[in-house]
Amino acid sequence: MVFTCLGKNRIKLFHSLHLKKFRDEHAMFIAEGNKLAAEILRSDFTIRALIATDKWYSKVTGTEDSHKWQTFELFGNAEEIIVESHDIIKRISLLSAPQEVLLVVSIPSYKYKTEDMKSELALAFDDIRDPGNMGTILRICDWFGIQNIFCSPESVDIYNPKSVQASMGSITRTKVHYIGLEQFLKEVNDAGDIPVYGTLLKGNNIYNENLSPNGLVLFGNESSGISSVLMPFISKKIYVPDFSMHNNKPESLNISAAAAIVCSEFRRKAND
Amino acid sequence: MVFTCLGKNRIKLFHSLHLKKFRDEHAMFIAEGNKLAAEILRSDFTIRALIATDKWYSKVTGTEDSHKWQTFELFGNAEEIIVESHDIIKRISLLSAPQEVLLVVSIPSYKYKTEDMKSELALAFDDIRDPGNMGTILRICDWFGIQNIFCSPESVDIYNPKSVQASMGSITRTKVHYIGLEQFLKEVNDAGDIPVYGTLLKGNNIYNENLSPNGLVLFGNESSGISSVLMPFISKKIYVPDFSMHNNKPESLNISAAAAIVCSEFRRKAND
Repeated sequence: MVFTCLGKNRIKLFHSLHLKKFRDEHAMFIAEGNKLAAEILRSDFTIRALIATDKWYSKVTGTEDSHKWQTFELFGNAEEIIVESHDIIKRISLLSAPQEVLLVVSIPSYKYKTEDMKSELALAFDDIRDPGNMGTILRICDWFGIQNIFCSPESVDIYNPKSVQASMGSITRTKVHYIGLEQFLKEVNDAGDIPVYGTLLKGNNIYNENLSPNGLVLFGNESSGISSVLMPFISKKIYVPDFSMHNNKPESLNISAAAAIVCSEFRRKAND
Repeated sequence: MVFTCLGKNRIKLFHSLHLKKFRDEHAMFIAEGNKLAAEILRSDFTIRALIATDKWYSKVTGTEDSHKWQTFELFGNAEEIIVESHDIIKRISLLSAPQEVLLVVSIPSYKYKTEDMKSELALAFDDIRDPGNMGTILRICDWFGIQNIFCSPESVDIYNPKSVQASMGSITRTKVHYIGLEQFLKEVNDAGDIPVYGTLLKGNNIYNENLSPNGLVLFGNESSGISSVLMPFISKKIYVPDFSMHNNKPESLNISAAAAIVCSEFRRKAND
């Protein structure tokens, strides 16, 4: 743990992390606010820098003596501790209402074995685009004990500031893998014994289906659904029936609402 | 149907509708984009003005002769049809990427009889704050055939541009009533035979509960939950169990994810 200040260049660098291009280049992302900082401080993530106002440190550590809080074990996994004015934090912040604390975090790299899906449930998203949906989906997965999420490379980046914020702390407890889904699904099929469910607007009513406690559930893009090239890899098509009373029916459920219902049904049935 | 232009004052007036104060004053809201416009044009909403580019009208009507499309029955329920440049539309628009069409719509007023909950399911929200959640919840209600939604007066305004857009067309098929929930719940209790479910972080596991096909389901604020003054009116406390594998568990489900799962469970059981 080093205790340092920020120069102009680093302020610029950290602010640039709101763009994927620079996140990829530096393999870092920004997490803002008290709650999220607390979750990440407790996690295995590598924290490159903890940047906060004097006021924040005093409040968190309960001491106004800055020499004391430098040694707090609470900040033990932060490589660098930086005290700055709220004005400087605002210049880095990606939020409309900047908080008193933000973290610069290394983007983790995750490994995954296809075989694992013989015993666990995982989700895959074909080209999901909305960062808020992506973050909400991590919270849902976290709630339902789903650890691995596979996204096509065109999908929204989970380290997008909006996704990070919407995930709350769930970004520390779930693993998002960006991977070409056609090749990946081929491997899943080849492994055998791994059911691949596709969520569509028709197929089998999810309420009446036997759902396995393991396997992969595939969701499509917000407007165009699942790409036709991925359809042959699906072993079971499922849908959430609508109960609309109108002739003019809603087109679809929001993708995070659909994911919530689908995860709930899988878990309910596995524990029935 | 009148065919007119916009002056400076009306551009300013329409743009001001992104603020609740002015929506309340003028009893109007803005709906933007092709899909939403199509849904509202098909609905019973009173459309005060349809504002679009020449390009949009030509595309929708399939004719470039503007005298022809003035008479199109598609626009029959719009009081005023206005052709403007995209620049003018941008000045009214509340979106970061303004579309080619927007509608100025009267805020509808809805009536409701407490007695109706003896035969139908309705939702209530105590101080819901996020406009995106609110819009998503209307889509969920629409999908599950829930028509009436009661919100405390402090809740986010459903005619907030973000809510309107997130609701997709569901804003035309659901009715949001702003009402003091303490008085309202008292009336519901007094009517008898109307179960009031409260969604909490503990209580009865929703998967194991008998859920009635009618009644009211109450949801709390995104961070503080259901106010203590409303607790005595709840006849059954329910929760969605978590399946998290971590010691450091997620605090809660996002409110729209919770609403999706709860609505799904009520409908599944009513049709079992």
